[in-house]
Amino acid sequence: MPTDAQQACFEAGIKFGSLYHQFAGTPVSPDSARSLERAMADAIENQPHCESVTVAVDDDAVREAIDHDEGYAELTGHLMTVEMRVRYRGVTVRTRMAMEDGYPRMRLVDVVDDGTSTDDDGAGDDGSAGAADGDR
Amino acid sequence: MPTDAQQACFEAGIKFGSLYHQFAGTPVSPDSARSLERAMADAIENQPHCESVTVAVDDDAVREAIDHDEGYAELTGHLMTVEMRVRYRGVTVRTRMAMEDGYPRMRLVDVVDDGTSTDDDGAGDDGSAGAADGDR
Amino acid sequence: MPTDAQQACFEAGIKFGSLYHQFAGTPVSPDSARSLERAMADAIENQPHCESVTVAVDDDAVREAIDHDEGYAELTGHLMTVEMRVRYRGVTVRTRMAMEDGYPRMRLVDVVDDGTSTDDDGAGDDGSAGAADGDR
Amino acid sequence: MPTDAQQACFEAGIKFGSLYHQFAGTPVSPDSARSLERAMADAIENQPHCESVTVAVDDDAVREAIDHDEGYAELTGHLMTVEMRVRYRGVTVRTRMAMEDGYPRMRLVDVVDDGTSTDDDGAGDDGSAGAADGDR
Repeated sequence: MPTDAQQACFEAGIKFGSLYHQFAGTPVSPDSARSLERAMADAIENQPHCESVTVAVDDDAVREAIDHDEGYAELTGHLMTVEMRVRYRGVTVRTRMAMEDGYPRMRLVDVVDDGTSTDDDGAGDDGSAGAADGDR
Repeated sequence: MPTDAQQACFEAGIKFGSLYHQFAGTPVSPDSARSLERAMADAIENQPHCESVTVAVDDDAVREAIDHDEGYAELTGHLMTVEMRVRYRGVTVRTRMAMEDGYPRMRLVDVVDDGTSTDDDGAGDDGSAGAADGDR
Repeated sequence: MPTDAQQACFEAGIKFGSLYHQFAGTPVSPDSARSLERAMADAIENQPHCESVTVAVDDDAVREAIDHDEGYAELTGHLMTVEMRVRYRGVTVRTRMAMEDGYPRMRLVDVVDDGTSTDDDGAGDDGSAGAADGDR
Repeated sequence: MPTDAQQACFEAGIKFGSLYHQFAGTPVSPDSARSLERAMADAIENQPHCESVTVAVDDDAVREAIDHDEGYAELTGHLMTVEMRVRYRGVTVRTRMAMEDGYPRMRLVDVVDDGTSTDDDGAGDDGSAGAADGDR
């Protein structure tokens, strides 16, 4: 049976995939970036177990991505950084998406069991020691 | 060769289809409806020839659409009214999407040539007399 | 009141915006391009007044767009050519999206009234003479 | 540091959220359901660590969802069942989305470590004993 920590990580992944594929392709410019950031965060925070979402669109990256006369780009992972906190039973998962070697990488930052989960081993589920290997 | 008025109507249709299919499926609740309305309008106003977009999410309809315990619905045309104004050369097109017989119908409201388009007949392109038949 | 030809152009625009923003962002590789082309065409042909849709994903462009180790790209207008035929009452509209100066441009190719529309002027609505100016 | 099993669950969640929010809103009818199922599976299988995806659109549910004259519905989780298998290092995660109390619920079915992961405890990561509580 999956542990609470595993369920929490699954839920965190769902939110990330949802945010990305719901909004990828949205026309964006520096003028519209603020309202898009806000709407993306508010929309995904509606989902179960999602405690907080922060989206930061990079205006400079948007300006560079505008490679034609129309004055806007289409949103991709190259243009934003996203952070989320998901809580499932007693387990809190923090995640982050940022550019890494030219690819917008979604990462588990840490997985922390506050001791109230139903998982009986703390060891593997306690990520308080730090981020995943690749995440620096 | 398509007239300026026809081009304007084509552009207006593009904006409607874009708005609808970019944002359909977005998690929405009365609490997140305002930021979503704003982001949808700002995003589509980035597109060429788009002068203004107004989105009104119907909070009562959202509440009714929430048929499970999670506290949010997914955005569909049943939950919003949209108005847009598109201008192509001298032609201004106003469009509207609202519920009609249970289907979110997108309509041309009127097509008005201010006389500066390159179209040499005014007749067929002057919609100032009123809305399309079905639009009431 | 909008003419049948204007309505037909509006409908054609809706289909284009829908197709683009529904599928932009879809993970695509040369191996998955054929099933995506097919599904995009079949999906949009469901919409009212849509007679035919053809989508051609450019496998070479997809390969070039794969700029990371994961082996896939995200669908954008840079990676495909789309043609559609929409018919509203007696008016047939042909449209096309293809790359033009680095921007995926959606174009009205022609607007042809077969004489059975309710439009009483044929002049402005007959696009049989050819494509729009910019479309070559 | 997150375990391999937690990473695998996070990856599985990403695929689910991606599939759902990329394709929600797609026009669908019994005639177009087969090509859509295929394209959804092929698209998501492009993503890292995704071994297999199966999508089954429920034609009867689609027919019931068509509540207007246009002959098509918009895809939602109410109209399909999805199964996926994701593998991250030595851990295989199986997931499933199906209707449950009127809500399309995404579930971890099981999490199996074949012994080659870098996780040093097998206990919490071995889900071979069965599905999660709610999953029937």
